[in-house]
Order: sequence, then C-alpha cells, then structure tokens
Amino acid sequence: MTVIGIDVGGTTIKGAAVTSEGKMFKTFTVPVSKYEKGVEVMERLAQAVNDYIATYKDEIGTIEGIGMGIPGVIDSKKGVVCASANLPLWTDLKVKEIIEKLTGLPVKVSNDANAAALGEVRFGAGDNCETAIMLTLGTGVGCGVVLNGQLFEGNEGKGAELGHSTLILGGRKCGCGRKGCFEAYASASGLIYDTEQMIEKHPESKMKKIAIQFGKVNGRVAFKAAREYEDPWAIKVVDQYISYLGEGLLNICNIFRPNLIILSGGVANEGDYLIERVQEYIKERDYGYKNSPEVKVVQGKLGYDSGKIGAAALFF
Amino acid sequence: MTVIGIDVGGTTIKGAAVTSEGKMFKTFTVPVSKYEKGVEVMERLAQAVNDYIATYKDEIGTIEGIGMGIPGVIDSKKGVVCASANLPLWTDLKVKEIIEKLTGLPVKVSNDANAAALGEVRFGAGDNCETAIMLTLGTGVGCGVVLNGQLFEGNEGKGAELGHSTLILGGRKCGCGRKGCFEAYASASGLIYDTEQMIEKHPESKMKKIAIQFGKVNGRVAFKAAREYEDPWAIKVVDQYISYLGEGLLNICNIFRPNLIILSGGVANEGDYLIERVQEYIKERDYGYKNSPEVKVVQGKLGYDSGKIGAAALFF
Repeated sequence: MTVIGIDVGGTTIKGAAVTSEGKMFKTFTVPVSKYEKGVEVMERLAQAVNDYIATYKDEIGTIEGIGMGIPGVIDSKKGVVCASANLPLWTDLKVKEIIEKLTGLPVKVSNDANAAALGEVRFGAGDNCETAIMLTLGTGVGCGVVLNGQLFEGNEGKGAELGHSTLILGGRKCGCGRKGCFEAYASASGLIYDTEQMIEKHPESKMKKIAIQFGKVNGRVAFKAAREYEDPWAIKVVDQYISYLGEGLLNICNIFRPNLIILSGGVANEGDYLIERVQEYIKERDYGYKNSPEVKVVQGKLGYDSGKIGAAALFF
Repeated sequence: MTVIGIDVGGTTIKGAAVTSEGKMFKTFTVPVSKYEKGVEVMERLAQAVNDYIATYKDEIGTIEGIGMGIPGVIDSKKGVVCASANLPLWTDLKVKEIIEKLTGLPVKVSNDANAAALGEVRFGAGDNCETAIMLTLGTGVGCGVVLNGQLFEGNEGKGAELGHSTLILGGRKCGCGRKGCFEAYASASGLIYDTEQMIEKHPESKMKKIAIQFGKVNGRVAFKAAREYEDPWAIKVVDQYISYLGEGLLNICNIFRPNLIILSGGVANEGDYLIERVQEYIKERDYGYKNSPEVKVVQGKLGYDSGKIGAAALFF
C-alpha cells in the first residue's frame, strides 16, 4: 500500500509518497503563510498532490490515500482543524472533506506531533515497539503517544498534551496560560531562557562568546560551551536542563511506563551527550525501579521525514 | 458469565460472585496480616473460594474464573505480585499460578486501583463510557486508567501511577522517594497535613474542636468546619485542596482528555461540595477549553464494592 504523507509546517507544507514498508519517495513542497485562508491553501495543496501523483505514477504506483499531520488542535475523527496557533486562518477548517473532494482519495488527519511519533515508532527509532512516547524538544514540547501500536489522542483527538502537565506548579509562565508546565522548562525555549539568564549573571561565561558567534542565544549555546570548553556556568545550565527533562520523563514513566521514550527536535540533536545523561538520570530515580521494566530513552532517527512518514502511517 | 471478584486489602480479603451484568452476590471475607507468608494466605483464600462456590452454587450458578485486585506492583500479564508495601511477604508471589492450581479456575490479577476503576467504569459512575480515569483519594492517590473500554496498565502492568507525577517539583516529600508528587497534596494524607498545619498556626479555628470531637485530625475536619461553620481557616485549607486536586485533574485532562474523571475514596465522600467546586475549577482553567470537549468529574457510585466488581470485570 502506498499513500501520500503530508507534513504541514508554519511556512512550508511537505509531502511524499510513502509505502507501508516505510519507503519514502521524492518530496514535493507547497508554501504556506499565516495570512492565507485555509481553504485557499487546500486548493493549492490538492493541486500539488494531483500533479505529483500524475508526474510520478510510474514510480510510486497506485496511491490509496492521503495522511496529514497538522500543527494545532485537530479533531482527527472528523478531520477538522479546530485551531492552530501557527495557522490562524485555518480555524474550523474541514481538511478531510475538502481534500477528499479535490483529490478523490480518502484522507486521514492528525496533529503533527502525533503523526511524527507514529512515524518514528513504526519506521524509525521505535523499532515498531508496542508502547512509546515521542517528545519533540523545540519551541514547545510536542508529544505523541503510541499505545499498543496505535496512536492515543484522547477524546476528540485533544489529549496527549504531555508538555502541558505541571513540573513546578506556579512556576514559569507557559504558552497555554498555566504556570509551571513541563514545556516551559524542557523546550528549547526553556533552555534558551535559562542560558540567557546565566549569561546575564555571568557575562564572563564562554556562552556569551558562542552566542555572539551564532548571532543569537539558541538551544545549542549552553551544550557547546559545556561540552567543548567545560564552561562552569554552561555546565550548570545543562545540568539543570537535564534534571528538568529527566523529571518530566520520570512522570511519563510513572504515567505510561512505555517501552521507549524517543526524543526529537532541536535539543535532541545534542545526541548521546544528552540521551546518555538523561537515561542515567531517570535510571537513578525511577519509582519502583527495582521492580519496574526500564524505560529506554533514544534519539529519533527520521529527522524531518518523521512528519511525512508518520502522516502516511495513519493508514498503516 | 459469572466469576468470583476478589479485593485484597491490608487487613481483609473480600470476595463475591459477580455476573457480567455487574450483579454482585453475597460477600465472603478472609483475614490477612502483613506478617503472614503470601503462599499461606493463598491456601486459605483458595479454600474460602472453594467453600463459597460449593455453598452457594444453586444461587450463583457456574463460576468461570477468579479476578483479583491486589495493592502493589503487579505484573498482570504473568499474574505475579512483584511488591506490595502493605503485604511485604507477598513479594514475587505467583498468585495466578497458585490459585489456578488450588481452585481449577482461570485467574486474572491486576492492581487493586486498576480493578476498582474498571468496576466503576463498567458498572458504576462510568456509565460504560469509552475513556475514564478513576482517582482514589485515600492514604495515597490510587489511579486506574480505562482507555477505549480497556484497562491501560503500562508495560508489565507498571504504569498508570498518576499519583506519582509532579505537581510541584521539589515540594513535599512523597512516599515514592520523589518530592512534590500529586499524591503528596491531593491524598487524604496531604489534606490532613494541611489541616494540621493550619490548626497549629490558628488554634482558634473551629477545626481544632472538630478534631477533638473526632478524636484525631482526619480528612473530614476541614470540610466539616468550612461547610457547617464557615470557619475562615478551614475555608483556606479546603480552597487550597481544591486547587491542588484541580491542577492535578487539569494535568490529566491534558494528558488523556478522558470523557470522565471519577473520584472515589475517603475525600470523595464530601460529595457535591467537592465535586462541583473541582469541576468548576478545571472548567475555568482548562487548556484550549474553547476547543476541547469538557471532562466531566463525578463521584464513584460503587463504594467498597468497586474492588470486587472490578476484579471480576477483568474477565468481561
């Protein structure tokens, strides 16, 4: 079976044909802007899909559906975008209905983080294991939950928001309106905040020079200064970040006790330096660890392709 | 179908025949002590089950299995008690194997809170809804998770420990070894701690007199003083408790977005006074509440029978 997997981003929509064995073909892209009406984007997107299928039909074979991962609050049963912070003119957009009409193919829609998680679990770092959680450590903490091989999305597709569970109630302001969510500490944004605070307090830190080289403080500054220069202030920032992330993962261990936690997104690119330390952190502190199966922490393997492959996997 | 549902407590084991329509017959009990070896208890229990079936066979009909809810860390696939704080001599007890041998009936085992949740969802307050979480607000915060009509227990039955997710990291010491777990604030023990602290600070509070009447500070003191006497210090304690509980429920809404949250256990006996306020609390603060389906909060209906009925429901 081959379907088109589509990953909707804030500035670009990417799509590709993907087989049920996880093989991905050539990618096509459609630009998108937050100022454009959702229905207009749908028309351009459907056109691009139809053109792609026609152009590559010899190579990709028969296409049996279109899977889409979209950022925001998605009603996956109905295939409707309820609201999307990045695409404000997509509110109440009936994606499934519109794209099915314009392409003649069945359409399945899910939240982008959910789709990416499904992609990683089925065809990437998840090694097709039964129960896994993927966290995307970017601007926020995106999350996808796969239980018994299937996406768990909550009633009307509005659960699995693990980034919005409290780490420190009353703590840092979170984008969701509450204070102290896991996302406010373990996202790249949280890490950048901590890095900036430390640089302000300790301008002698190597982090300041690295930030100037990079042109800004980003999520890599503290890790680079800690790893390459053993800068004591950077080590403090990184240690603190590991503990925030580790405590959030301990919560996930207690709540889901998955086989696997997959980390992806910008911060996860720190690779083993991050993964090994956070794995050790939770191993040392895991509740009932003597009697509980270990939860393995790994880095995602598919990178940006997880969105397309996972969107296609909604059909598999 | 009729099976025997068994609810193992710290001092008494209770059992009864339960039909797949949720009808419960007469109860039998077997005393248990933490000083007694698990295998010896199993022998007495199997004898009691065999006697019960023989005595009431005309009334209860054919018995097709035995479901058991046991406090502690349970490997429900294997039917083994890995560890139980209340029954320390049950460690690594092969309950399923032993009871099957002694009764000739198939046995299913789960954690007691999980079983109770299944009972409430299938035959009590859950109204057989798809996805529901039950929290038992007692000495700890017990938890059972029912997703798509089935118990979700995590890998080797060691997940669904929602009481051990952080509310305030670094906060109050929790029995699990971490600090700031939801359980440390929203359990009856957490409420008692807050009540005691307030009485110490404000001995003029009506709560002190009520505690003397009760012979001790329990989970009812603050609620009684707030409701019946409008004691300002009691109102503070109750307001704080509602906010702790409410914030924990908001986490559950974001993580699972269930149809329903069922509250049971000692504190839940405060009934509407508690339920209505906590429902209002989460309604006002729910993330994406404009676009998300409301999560209803209700009180459990089965009381102490939920354990037996739920243990039986492991077969239904």
